[in-house]
This record gives sequence, C-alpha cells and structure tokens, in this order.
Amino acid sequence: MKNNNEKNKSLLGHKLRVMSLGGLQEIGKNMTVLEYGDDIIVIDAGMGFPDEDMLGVDLVIPDISYLIKNAHKIRGILITHGHEDHIGGVPYVLSQINVPIYGTRLALGIIEGKLDENPPPFEPELYTVEAGDVINLGVFKAEFIHVNHSIADACAISIKTPVGIVFHTGDFKLDVSPIDGKMMDITRIGEIGKAGVTLLLCESTNAERSGFTPSERTVGSSLERIFAQYENRRLIIATFSSNVHRVQQIINASANHNRKVAVLGRSMVNIIGAAAELGYMDLPDGVLIDVNDIKRYKPEDITLITTGSQGEPMSALYRIAFDEHDRVKINSNDVVVLSSSAIPGNEKLVGKIINALVKNGVKVVNDSTEDVHVSGHACRDEIKLMMALTKPKYFMPIHGEYRHLYANKDIAEFMGIKPDNIFISEIGKVLEIDRKGARFNGTVPAGKVLVDGSGVGDIGSVVLRDRKHLAEDGLVVVVATIDSVGKQIVSGPDIVSRGFVYVKESEELMRSARRIAEESLERAMKNSRGDWAYIKSVVRDDMAKFIFKETKRKPMILSVIMDI
Amino acid sequence: MKNNNEKNKSLLGHKLRVMSLGGLQEIGKNMTVLEYGDDIIVIDAGMGFPDEDMLGVDLVIPDISYLIKNAHKIRGILITHGHEDHIGGVPYVLSQINVPIYGTRLALGIIEGKLDENPPPFEPELYTVEAGDVINLGVFKAEFIHVNHSIADACAISIKTPVGIVFHTGDFKLDVSPIDGKMMDITRIGEIGKAGVTLLLCESTNAERSGFTPSERTVGSSLERIFAQYENRRLIIATFSSNVHRVQQIINASANHNRKVAVLGRSMVNIIGAAAELGYMDLPDGVLIDVNDIKRYKPEDITLITTGSQGEPMSALYRIAFDEHDRVKINSNDVVVLSSSAIPGNEKLVGKIINALVKNGVKVVNDSTEDVHVSGHACRDEIKLMMALTKPKYFMPIHGEYRHLYANKDIAEFMGIKPDNIFISEIGKVLEIDRKGARFNGTVPAGKVLVDGSGVGDIGSVVLRDRKHLAEDGLVVVVATIDSVGKQIVSGPDIVSRGFVYVKESEELMRSARRIAEESLERAMKNSRGDWAYIKSVVRDDMAKFIFKETKRKPMILSVIMDI
Repeated sequence: MKNNNEKNKSLLGHKLRVMSLGGLQEIGKNMTVLEYGDDIIVIDAGMGFPDEDMLGVDLVIPDISYLIKNAHKIRGILITHGHEDHIGGVPYVLSQINVPIYGTRLALGIIEGKLDENPPPFEPELYTVEAGDVINLGVFKAEFIHVNHSIADACAISIKTPVGIVFHTGDFKLDVSPIDGKMMDITRIGEIGKAGVTLLLCESTNAERSGFTPSERTVGSSLERIFAQYENRRLIIATFSSNVHRVQQIINASANHNRKVAVLGRSMVNIIGAAAELGYMDLPDGVLIDVNDIKRYKPEDITLITTGSQGEPMSALYRIAFDEHDRVKINSNDVVVLSSSAIPGNEKLVGKIINALVKNGVKVVNDSTEDVHVSGHACRDEIKLMMALTKPKYFMPIHGEYRHLYANKDIAEFMGIKPDNIFISEIGKVLEIDRKGARFNGTVPAGKVLVDGSGVGDIGSVVLRDRKHLAEDGLVVVVATIDSVGKQIVSGPDIVSRGFVYVKESEELMRSARRIAEESLERAMKNSRGDWAYIKSVVRDDMAKFIFKETKRKPMILSVIMDI
Repeated sequence: MKNNNEKNKSLLGHKLRVMSLGGLQEIGKNMTVLEYGDDIIVIDAGMGFPDEDMLGVDLVIPDISYLIKNAHKIRGILITHGHEDHIGGVPYVLSQINVPIYGTRLALGIIEGKLDENPPPFEPELYTVEAGDVINLGVFKAEFIHVNHSIADACAISIKTPVGIVFHTGDFKLDVSPIDGKMMDITRIGEIGKAGVTLLLCESTNAERSGFTPSERTVGSSLERIFAQYENRRLIIATFSSNVHRVQQIINASANHNRKVAVLGRSMVNIIGAAAELGYMDLPDGVLIDVNDIKRYKPEDITLITTGSQGEPMSALYRIAFDEHDRVKINSNDVVVLSSSAIPGNEKLVGKIINALVKNGVKVVNDSTEDVHVSGHACRDEIKLMMALTKPKYFMPIHGEYRHLYANKDIAEFMGIKPDNIFISEIGKVLEIDRKGARFNGTVPAGKVLVDGSGVGDIGSVVLRDRKHLAEDGLVVVVATIDSVGKQIVSGPDIVSRGFVYVKESEELMRSARRIAEESLERAMKNSRGDWAYIKSVVRDDMAKFIFKETKRKPMILSVIMDI
C-alpha cells in the first residue's frame, strides 16, 4: 500500500478524461463518464426514445461497452434526478455490471420500481444521498447540490478531481419561489465557483430561449383562475406523473375549492403513492378518493388528475377522450386542462386527443391559451447565472441537439469564456484535462443500443432497413419446390403477399404474378447449372420488375426455392 | 324544352344540397359540392397528406363515387386557388369523369403542369376566370371574388342558387398592404352581404388564433433587416414555392442589395417560371442567374432561393444541409433563412436540417427569432369581418380539424348567428336548404382514397394493418413441402426472416425455430386428417408462441405449406 504522498505523486502523470456516452447531439439517454487513472464515475444512465426511422423499437439506451470493459474501475453511478432520460438505462446497466448507485430518495424510489420489474442478477447497491452530501469515490469526491427542476429533489453534482472541480449541472432551472420552498442552492454553487471550477458541464435544453423560465408557482395562479372560472364543471387535468410539484398544486387548488381528487393512470397512481410516502407531497386529509367513488359526488366537486398529456395512445386521457375508459365518461360539462406542452414529435398525437375532446363538447384549456405549464429547464439568463457563479475555466455544453449545444457555446462566449476553452463534443469523444490544459484526445466506443421486446442490441441497421421497406410497400413471397437437380418444378410457384395490395380485389394481378414466376423459374432453371442462388435471384428480379411495371410499387420480394 | 316559367316552377320543389367530400374534420383534400335538382357544382378538388398510420401511402384524395355516379349533372369544378390541398386531386377526378374546370390563371397553370404528368383520357376543358367574372352553371351563377392568401390570385366564390346565395370563402386573409396591391375585395363582399347571403362556408384554419394575421409586407421588412445585417455573407432562403409574393419579396430585397439570385429545387424553378410568364412576378433584369454561375460571384453577392422549408428529405435545402448537393456547398459564411413555419408533424424534420446546418457553422434564422413568416389564413378578427360583411343566415365552418370548426362556430355565435343556424358537418353529410329552413338530411358516400404508386384505392385497412405489423416486428416465414397425402415432410421446413433479428447474430435462435417448426409440422400432419389449413395454422401458432417466449416480439408469421 502506497502512502498518500506516493499516491499523489503517482497520480500526477494521469489526465482526467471526460466523455459522454449519451446526451450530446441528441435528446435523452444522458450519461457522462469521468475517468482518472484507475477510477471511473458515471453521472446518470438515461434512456431515449426511438427516432421515427427506428420502426418497432421500444427505447434506446447508450452503448456501455466501454463501461463493461472497465467495470473494475467504476466507483459508482451518480443520479442527478429521477426522469427517464437520466435513469431509464439503469436496469440495462445493472444487468451487465454490478456498480453502486447514488441518488436522492425520489430518484432511487423510481429506480427501485424499475428494478422490481427488471431485477438485476445480484442484490443492487442503492445509496440514498441528500443535497449537501459528499461521497468519496476513488480519487473523486462528489457533492450533491440542490437545483430546481420539473421533478422534486433534483441535484447538480460538483466533483473534486485531481485536476480541479468538474461541475455537472444536471437538468436545472432557478425557481425563486419553488413549491417546496427549496430554491436552487446558488450560495453553495457560488462558493464552489469562488474556490475555482475547472470544467463546467451545463445542460443546453433551453439555450435558444431568452430570459428566465417562469416559476412553477405561475402555474398555481393559472390553476386558481381556472378553478374559479369553471366552478360548476368537472375538471380533468393531465400532466407528467413525475412532476410532483405540479400534481401538488392541482391537489392544493382542489382542496381550496372543496373538490375531491381521483387519480387515473398507472404511472400517476404509482408516483403519487411513492412521493407521498417519501414525504415529497402533502396530501390533505380526505381529498384523495378512489376513482370508483367519483359517482358519489357531484361532477363539479371532482378533479381528475391523469396521465396522457403527450397524447400517448392507451394513456388514461386517451381512453377518456375516445370513450374507451371503463370508469370515466366525458360529457359537455367537463373541462380538460393539458398542463404540459407537446414534446416535439407529439404535436399530432396531442391534437388528436384535443379534437376528440372538443367533439364531445368538452372545453379544452392548454398552454396556448393559459399559463398552465412552465418548463423545467434553464433559459439563457439562468445559464448565464450558472456561468457567473461557477466561473469555469473550461466549458462543455451537454444535454441537447447540436443546435442547443451551439447556442450554449454562444452564451459561454458572451459570458467571457475563451472560445478555445469551449468544447462542443459528441458521444464517445474524450476531453482530456491535465495541468497543461484541455483538449480532445481520442474516442471510446459509443452509440445507440436499440431495445425491442426482450432484445437489447440485436436490432441494427439491416433489420431497420428491412422494416422500413416492409412498412412502405409490404411483401411478396414467391415459393416453389423443384427437383434435386434443378430441372423441374415439383410444386408451386405460389405467391403470398402481405401489406402490398388487397388480394381479393387484385386477383388478376396475382394470377399474372404467378405466371411470371413460373416462366421466370423455368428459364432460370435452364440457365442455372445447378446454381440455386442464381435461380432465386432471377425469380426475385423478374418479379420485382413485373410488380413495379404494374403498380409503381417496390414491395420486398422473397423468393424461397426448395428442393427435394 | 320547358320555358323559363315552367323551369322555375319545376325548381320550386327542389332543395339545395350542400356537402363536403373533404376538408371537414381533417386538414386537406378540400372539396365542397352543391347540388340542386339536375345540377351539381364542385368547389376545389384537393389532396391530403397521409396520417402516420398510413404507412407507405403517397397521398390521400377524396372518395368521389358520388360525383362519378352523378357525373352527368356536374356543370363544373371551380378552383379557389392553386394550393395542393385545393387542386391536388384534379388529375384523379379527371381520370374518372370529364368535367370543365374553372380557375384563375395561376391555379390553372399549376393544374396544367399536373395534367401533363398525369394526362386524362380526353382533352381537358380548362377555363380561365378572373376575379369579378360570373359563370353560369345550370341553375347556379358563380362569381369569383379576390381574396388575399399565401398564393397569388386566390378567390372566394359567391354562388347564386335558387334558395339564395352560398358564399364560399376559399382560404383567405385580409392583407391591407398586399404585395400585388390587390386587397381582398371587401367592397364586393359587402355588397353581396347587403343583398343577402343564405349560407356562409368559411375556412377555419386559424379560428383558434386571436386578432388579425399580419401583412405579407412585415416579412419584407424583416428581410430588409436580415439583408442589412448579413451583408457580408451568402444568404440561402427557403420558403414554399407557391408563395409567389414571398419569393417576389426575396428577389426585391436581393435586387436592392445588389445580389444575384439563383433558384434551387424543381418546384421552385417551375413555379417562378410559370408565375413570371403569367405576369404574377416582376423579375428585375439581370437579377436571376443560373445556379451553375454562382461561382462567378462573391458569396456575399448571392441569394439562393430554395425549397425544403418543411425539412423534406431530398429537397434542395436538405441536400445542401447534409452536403449532398452537387452545386451548392455550405460553409460558416452562409446564413440560412427559413421563411416558413413548420406544419404540425414536420417539427422534427425541420429540426434535423437546422442541426445539420448549425453543425456546419451556418447561421440559421427562423420564425422563432425573426418575423420571417406570416400565415395565409384568417385569424379570429378577420373571420369576424367576413361574417360582418356577409351577414349570413346559415353558417357552416369548413377547412379544419374538429377543434378548428368548433372554434369557428364559437366566433359565429359571438357575431350573433343563431346557434340553431350553425352547422358543424362532416364529410358526406348533406346540409339541405329550402324555403322552410336548413337541416342535415342524409349522407352521400365519402372517405379517404389512398394513393400508393400507381394504385388508387387498392389499399385499405387490411393492407395498412399488415404494413404496421411488419414495421413493428418484421416477418418470419416458415416454408415446407409435404407429400400429397399430408403424412411426410418432403423438403424443409426452412425459416426465412426479415426485419426481425439480425440473423447472423441469432443463429441459435434460428436453429431452435427450425426445430420447433419441424416438431410442429410433424404433430400437425398426424392430427390434420388432410386439412391443409389446419396444418398451416398449427405451425403458425406454435412459431408465434416460441418467438414471443424467446424475444417478447410478435413478428408476422407466414406459414407456407406446399404439397407435391
């Protein structure tokens, strides 16, 4: 065992390596890795949603092969907060490597729920921390610092490393009047900044938006107005289940207006239960009722809180809107409040629900007409505040598409950080920091691992390309059996199609296709010299040509030639 | 031949029937039909874009079986303006029925281009009209009235019918300072209103937005600022090709700032050519240059006008952004202006282009930071103006999703139209008007006809369901040949999969699948009593069960059993 001096000396030769395995030039699957000598810490292990071209994919997680290879070095995964894009990858990581997880109670509570559904092959080590706690992790000392965000108990993490402090903002906003009374700990952040920050990793989600993000409390004021305006109508309010403070405000407004509250949607029920148990919510006595009991009250004495604010098919709100919910039937006395904004890509789904509601005579209130939603992310002036407090030497924007990272770089330059000290990175790219400076140096493996059903990573570009092909124009299968010398057709050819044309109305086309297949097969066999692959490809090409000529479509053609 | 008195007398018994075959409770494929006795007129014949669940579908057109059945009654199709959602269905209508088309020069110019690509089986009758023209069509007299919109030469249509005037607004806005100097003819609309309007059909696109839509000229002012600010950089400006006045303003600003203009994108080149030839545009001498000549000028002396403002893959802007354009290479001295707003559903595509541009160091200006776009549709106050001028007895909102129609109904009630006289309709529903009043009475066939390749209407719910299934989890085909009595396997079973798993990395799974198929087939043959369908279904079900157990996926399973 070396003594401390020796150890410090031996560390002198090392460099800090900072790399993200997710969250750079993309939204979601956030994961940042710090490595120094034999020590690695990981910040967050998120999941992402599939792009439109990832047909059939359920979710996307980071490629963690670098972590698997260096598992012995990993001292822990630090969780900034309990949103899916920061914790959704935890079960997949733990299925491969056994590392301790550190996070606040709410984040760990949500993670525990996930691990119950997908238990790792060992007893997971989960350690609860509170803002202010400092954790020793090899050469690293990590301090959790309270920030405001659209989920309770979110943290930034300040990491003492041998080359100075790395400050990771997590996702944050400054709320000067937060619901739980706990403002972002700008005092502590300022102290750390005074002591000197080497590298700031700052989220970029709202870096294109000017000013400050409004306080969560502005939503409370809007809710008060809405409750007063619609005092004679039932209220159905949809929001993100993880937005504990939003849900709290809806419950408070209901209690103020003598309404009972029923909760709809599995994730909403789960989170309210967990948050109340963990002390994040204050449920006034007798306000919450079971959804089965809503009939006992007058509609105007009821608030329903529900999932589905993004228009998710099969969510409670979706089923209510399309009259598929077994316990809640809407009518023209209902008011639906969408306390949310549509995530890019979900606009049409949300629109579909609004149309269905309006068609049933329901009054719909959303963020285009009332202040019923605020963002959880820092706008430009809050990012400036973060930079002014931390005064970092080096800056790397994280959490965002390229445009957001770039906008954050612009802010950093405005705040006086030297352009040469600003690093727009990409997943897998290594930022190396030592006493001499900071620079990009090399890469580690990184990418998107696609999860489909129970398969993790068994879907790649070939499978996706085939799915896209099948989705566009469907499939035509030509099957035939020929004799063992490839001279004579024994059975078939048969034509089977799916997703191509409605066969019953295209009998003539299918008959012609069968004739073409037969001619093609006879001709191919004559010229094949026993080359099966040749026969298959001739039949496939002839069929593709025929079908394109007749329909201007290009279905996938499979030719299956069997022999006896 | 009856004399006029007799004819008028015989008409007394008839009712006016108003029905839309598209554009109600949906965006696009606008088509309104007026029928009285033996006379039918049609207003617009648009196309729509496929919903996300219409995989592989190119476009959507109205079901016109009612028109085909009553072709002998149709006196003409009247076109309000040349946008795709008003004219895109014309080639499909003319491929089935021979009816004259009436429209302004620009609209007919664009239609002619379409008919050149898809010529009808006869010489089409196209009649050019101008605002102010009145056309006799059986019992109907149609007057074209100038309105402002995001394409030149747009019209409302006022139709004199035996039960009074039906006023169809088309798509419109009020522009008090239009680029071509021609304000919407509110005087004429007011005169018609004074004479008395029985039914107003009014567009609803922006019925949820308060106030007035800004003048197209505000975009000109923004362009001036942008041209001044970026005088040392090349400008690339993307907009809708059909927005002739926008393009005119970009050309004017370029001429003012001594820039040459090159045009990119087939539809942009076509429309500018047509519009200039028809006199809708004023091209200053020597400003337009060929894109091949841009190298002869300094970048800061060039403006490129391009398609792709909606992020369309393969558009000129897309190819430029992803460095796939053969003649335009971008660099960090370029400024790209998106003079447009993203149509709902296109946000992610537009975002993709912005990221690619920013990544190349390009400055991107869009409508979130500058007033580089205005809508072409009437906001609430313009709709109120339309109602105040026409003072209709009956009102039917058109052109919009349910929420938009409903918002328009609210405006009508605010303007004092009796709730009982307001009709929110749906496609195919017949609004009947006679001396006694107006009421819904019956329906005619209506729906969405899907166009895929050269196939029109041969794709229905079964094909779409199969495409969705294939897109989600791919396909597994089990093929086997058995003897003619169904007792013995002669060849196979073989397993072929596409879009399911990456086969090379799943050899073990595929081997097991083959074994399962063999066992299943043997067992099924034993119990089949020669029932081929039974054998197929057993093999399919066993395979589905096995695959779900192993992968939690549900690919489409095809079992093809041949016999010799």
